[in-house]
Amino acid sequence: MTEEKDLIIIGAGPAGLTAGIYGVRSELKTLVIESKLPGGQIATAGEVENYPGFPEGILGMELAEKMKQQAENAGVEIKSLKEVNKIEKNNKLKIHTSDETYAANAIIIATGLEHRKLGIPGEKEYAGRGISYCFTCDGPLYKGRKVVVVGGGTGAVQAALYLSEIAEETTMISKSDRIRSAETIMITRLEKSTVKTMIKTKPIEIVGDQFVEGIKVQDIENNQEKLIKTDGIFVEIGKKPNTKFLDGPGIKLVKGYIKVDDNLATNIPGIYAAGDVTTNKVKQLGVAVAQGTVAALSAYDYIKSL
Amino acid sequence: MTEEKDLIIIGAGPAGLTAGIYGVRSELKTLVIESKLPGGQIATAGEVENYPGFPEGILGMELAEKMKQQAENAGVEIKSLKEVNKIEKNNKLKIHTSDETYAANAIIIATGLEHRKLGIPGEKEYAGRGISYCFTCDGPLYKGRKVVVVGGGTGAVQAALYLSEIAEETTMISKSDRIRSAETIMITRLEKSTVKTMIKTKPIEIVGDQFVEGIKVQDIENNQEKLIKTDGIFVEIGKKPNTKFLDGPGIKLVKGYIKVDDNLATNIPGIYAAGDVTTNKVKQLGVAVAQGTVAALSAYDYIKSL
Repeated sequence: MTEEKDLIIIGAGPAGLTAGIYGVRSELKTLVIESKLPGGQIATAGEVENYPGFPEGILGMELAEKMKQQAENAGVEIKSLKEVNKIEKNNKLKIHTSDETYAANAIIIATGLEHRKLGIPGEKEYAGRGISYCFTCDGPLYKGRKVVVVGGGTGAVQAALYLSEIAEETTMISKSDRIRSAETIMITRLEKSTVKTMIKTKPIEIVGDQFVEGIKVQDIENNQEKLIKTDGIFVEIGKKPNTKFLDGPGIKLVKGYIKVDDNLATNIPGIYAAGDVTTNKVKQLGVAVAQGTVAALSAYDYIKSL
Repeated sequence: MTEEKDLIIIGAGPAGLTAGIYGVRSELKTLVIESKLPGGQIATAGEVENYPGFPEGILGMELAEKMKQQAENAGVEIKSLKEVNKIEKNNKLKIHTSDETYAANAIIIATGLEHRKLGIPGEKEYAGRGISYCFTCDGPLYKGRKVVVVGGGTGAVQAALYLSEIAEETTMISKSDRIRSAETIMITRLEKSTVKTMIKTKPIEIVGDQFVEGIKVQDIENNQEKLIKTDGIFVEIGKKPNTKFLDGPGIKLVKGYIKVDDNLATNIPGIYAAGDVTTNKVKQLGVAVAQGTVAALSAYDYIKSL
């Protein structure tokens, strides 16, 4: 049996939940489908200080929960832990998930980003046994122990700062020649922290026994190899758009990101996209919220024009 | 004496305050100048239900206060009640206010919208004596009395719903042939409320003695005139951009709105704009926050390139 909705949103991060709130407020039968836990990246982001409305900052997980609660209070139906396999377009749009098929007049894709993997020996073997892609989830396990953060961008800086408050010793390893962050304040905080940074350094293998025991790295300038002993490795080498499932009706992508116009319409009529999964270059929480807003209002106009 | 800053933001609504937060987090010397009270339109917007993060909704005034507090906590300097007279561009950008001159490397204009006036006899005379442009500010004064809301759009619907909970009788008068709202849910609520609506009706004169006593209206179809007795008149006939002060360095406007590109740059290098004052068509709180974010990050890139 195919369940029919007006608007289906794939992804329950800030963009998807906001689109849900606006969908319901436009009195559309609105469903949000999520394949992981609601909240998207903010649910694992540590302290959020730059989303206006919370003078003392707010934990990402708590903000995610508030947004989900608000969507539910507004009347949004949220179905969690459904894997979307395929989107189809005939008369109506169809979404095939791991266990059910849904039809909709409009779809908003708000599947966000997922963590990039290192792709080095030992990474798969020790995933969940000392290798983590979520510092807020797993960080607290490393109280008084040694951790390594791999990466040199905003996410890595956040992870290192967070972990340095918990771990005995935090080392950041980056291939590039300097540590970067979208916000200068994060670099200043890093310099004032106890985090050790190793730049121009490439991870080449993760070693251990039952659990991670170290990471082999290589100096990019002189090719010298070195083993860093560590209890945990946090991988923060950037993110990539969650668009693998889109082998559907030929949605146009640019480097994996969904191409959208100013109304957040994709190239397929009735399919919109919002948040970090789109080609929009500023990946910030407030921008995802705005895109959820605009995508839902655009989808509403589209549905009314049918 | 001219005070020097890296970034000056004109306007302390959601766009301006968010730009301030991001400016400080980029370690720019950031000043926000406001000619009215901080918070912009949300400060007078009643209950805000569609800004994600507040499951039970939040009063606009309270949210405005939280955003201001957050900006101040972050280290943003806010100077209230300064009228900006002129922006100049020589080597640096200069802002002339009612009492001081400031120089900056970049400016973000986030002055938002102001209420349109009716432009009919009696409007000036009774302003503040029964005529109001802010239902959340003045609504509570009309407990148990009769009020008229002039307007047929989203703002008018919000005002009428708000007032119908306080006043003895609330009448909405609109020139157009139906009441409109950006969100369907507001129309549904209106239909379920005690608000009386009069469409195709034009206000022509406000009458009274010391205070407002009535509003003369005309039926658009048969030109018949009628006097509606009322204690208060709330004008909600739309808003226009606050760009009158911009006789400065030739910032390009479209119908009074500031023309911006995707980075929120205006046509003048170093001058950016954010929020409802821009040509962006979706006037929603979350969008203003996103635009504040993007404008501040763009201004940062510009300053670093100088």
